[in-house]
Amino acid sequence: MGTNRIEAFSDGVIAIIITIMVLELKVPHGADLASLTALGPVFCAYVLSFVYFGIYWNNHHHLMHAAKRVNGSVLWANLHVLFWLSLLPFTTNWMGENHLAPWPTALYGFDLFMTAVAWYILARALIGLHGANSMLERAIGADPKGKISVVLYLVAIAASFWEPWVAAALYALVAMWLVPDRRVEKVTLTEEQ
Amino acid sequence: MGTNRIEAFSDGVIAIIITIMVLELKVPHGADLASLTALGPVFCAYVLSFVYFGIYWNNHHHLMHAAKRVNGSVLWANLHVLFWLSLLPFTTNWMGENHLAPWPTALYGFDLFMTAVAWYILARALIGLHGANSMLERAIGADPKGKISVVLYLVAIAASFWEPWVAAALYALVAMWLVPDRRVEKVTLTEEQ
Amino acid sequence: MGTNRIEAFSDGVIAIIITIMVLELKVPHGADLASLTALGPVFCAYVLSFVYFGIYWNNHHHLMHAAKRVNGSVLWANLHVLFWLSLLPFTTNWMGENHLAPWPTALYGFDLFMTAVAWYILARALIGLHGANSMLERAIGADPKGKISVVLYLVAIAASFWEPWVAAALYALVAMWLVPDRRVEKVTLTEEQ
Amino acid sequence: MGTNRIEAFSDGVIAIIITIMVLELKVPHGADLASLTALGPVFCAYVLSFVYFGIYWNNHHHLMHAAKRVNGSVLWANLHVLFWLSLLPFTTNWMGENHLAPWPTALYGFDLFMTAVAWYILARALIGLHGANSMLERAIGADPKGKISVVLYLVAIAASFWEPWVAAALYALVAMWLVPDRRVEKVTLTEEQ
Repeated sequence: MGTNRIEAFSDGVIAIIITIMVLELKVPHGADLASLTALGPVFCAYVLSFVYFGIYWNNHHHLMHAAKRVNGSVLWANLHVLFWLSLLPFTTNWMGENHLAPWPTALYGFDLFMTAVAWYILARALIGLHGANSMLERAIGADPKGKISVVLYLVAIAASFWEPWVAAALYALVAMWLVPDRRVEKVTLTEEQ
Repeated sequence: MGTNRIEAFSDGVIAIIITIMVLELKVPHGADLASLTALGPVFCAYVLSFVYFGIYWNNHHHLMHAAKRVNGSVLWANLHVLFWLSLLPFTTNWMGENHLAPWPTALYGFDLFMTAVAWYILARALIGLHGANSMLERAIGADPKGKISVVLYLVAIAASFWEPWVAAALYALVAMWLVPDRRVEKVTLTEEQ
Repeated sequence: MGTNRIEAFSDGVIAIIITIMVLELKVPHGADLASLTALGPVFCAYVLSFVYFGIYWNNHHHLMHAAKRVNGSVLWANLHVLFWLSLLPFTTNWMGENHLAPWPTALYGFDLFMTAVAWYILARALIGLHGANSMLERAIGADPKGKISVVLYLVAIAASFWEPWVAAALYALVAMWLVPDRRVEKVTLTEEQ
Repeated sequence: MGTNRIEAFSDGVIAIIITIMVLELKVPHGADLASLTALGPVFCAYVLSFVYFGIYWNNHHHLMHAAKRVNGSVLWANLHVLFWLSLLPFTTNWMGENHLAPWPTALYGFDLFMTAVAWYILARALIGLHGANSMLERAIGADPKGKISVVLYLVAIAASFWEPWVAAALYALVAMWLVPDRRVEKVTLTEEQ
């Protein structure tokens, strides 16, 4: 069983989640600038989640590009990733509307944490299917960035109850740090030469 | 006529339904933990339906993989399956918001029942097109799990008016029992060897 | 330029519209049967529009299957069809919520009428591109069903202001009459032999 | 890495945004003609944005058709375009509901302006990847229409605070002027001969 349909389905789900988020940017009743700036926190949360969706979409692209086939376990591991991503519009909006209150900020981090864990399970399921020393295994490697980001999400969750702005800054920093992540891309290119 | 476009369209519809469901997880006004836990029943219903969508998506994947071609009857039988699936966000939410009240719980089971019936019609339409003894016919086979699940949905519908928690438990148990269902996958692999 | 991407895009739009419609089935506050039956008219309108989407999706499938290539005019003619289809959830719901009041019932027919006109323009644009006597031209032919349905929509619009139930019955009858429409399919199969 | 998946993902996002916009056409409570005509401004804004989505979808089609491959920078530049497009339903509706009040009308133009800028960055990223004198570079060329449209958006933003109808007329005129834009198509066809 090839990777085409799992790619198409995941792309569909991610594309829909990314655009559904914008529905939470409720059109204000007023027509002045103040009505618009009141949406600032929700908008910032939207931008942050948009970047995270971009990161996961890119990584998914690379992971499936390196994979040759999928089985039932991979399909379910993939759905598990999509499940936690599908909750991101909810957690994004709860955090944005409550101006970084502790519980919403912690829940946002929890969702990122669970997505990262689900991603790890997906990567392991694919490696288990393709075997050790496969191109895929080397492409994913020890994945230090993935492991460090998981720790940082946990730190941010704890920080949410102490100083939520620290948590939000951590979420943003992790995103900026993950964007130029081309591990899989590099190995894939090397393999193809 | 190949199966590509019917696969792509069905994936699109399922991907959209699965993500539209999350729109019903209305962002609470409060920012405390109690506001979040109040969403518990709706969230549990969301998880349950997410798993059912995963089951149908996987089975659809396998069914279309085994099929070679489609005709007008298959297209309409497929739309019929998608119709009952498209109602699942509505029935999921009605059940979740009413904390397993009898009618909503029964309607949820009715929707699962009709989806299973529509699935049976789709499978028959495909077998009718590919002929008896085709790979597809052997792949689907007598489908005992499918038939038993239909009976269990009917039992759950009846139980909804007696003790709705029994019905909800049945829905969950059937889902857990259907997840590792790899009938079609196995036969397909055998054929390809 | 091939027809792949226009097919994929159109499928995406139709899949989204078909599932967005279900969002208008607002979850009732009550948990009894009366709350559910109050949704009857909106549900019937939903079923009717679902069938029309199925018809257009099937016909689009067949039309693009017979087409070999597209150009800028076809792309815009296709977007024009999608535009009128995209308004169908709105007109469906206005008609359903107002229990077949004259103006909503007439607007529903107007939307079907404009979709049929846009479809005719799309078919002409494709024939213009492929040339007379092409497989596509013979596949579409004089299209008596298409022309008669346009007249019936106009009759139904007029009937909306006299007796809306007649209009609704006409919409349903035209849909049932269009479902088994396999003109393009037949000619395509003949050509391939 | 090919352009298939970036095309499919972008099509998905555009298809969803285009249909999500229609959700803002809220079904009126009344059933008479006056209830419908009250939606006039929102409807006009919807039509305008639909045309802009058509323009971007067509241009994206042509751009990716001329491109041979993508890299990480192109993926992010593409997501950047989709980000500004994803805000269009919000800006469209704010403008439509406020009957061309100054700030909403200016914000609509700002969104169009940022989309055009993001498009320019995407085109540069693709040219940088394919090299000067590539088919792609000649296909895009000096892009006078693109540059002039950016200036016209800025003029319209300024006009929003003076006479918003002038700004709206400019948005409509630019759209009508961009529709028959077949630069990329022409060069692509020439190359293929």
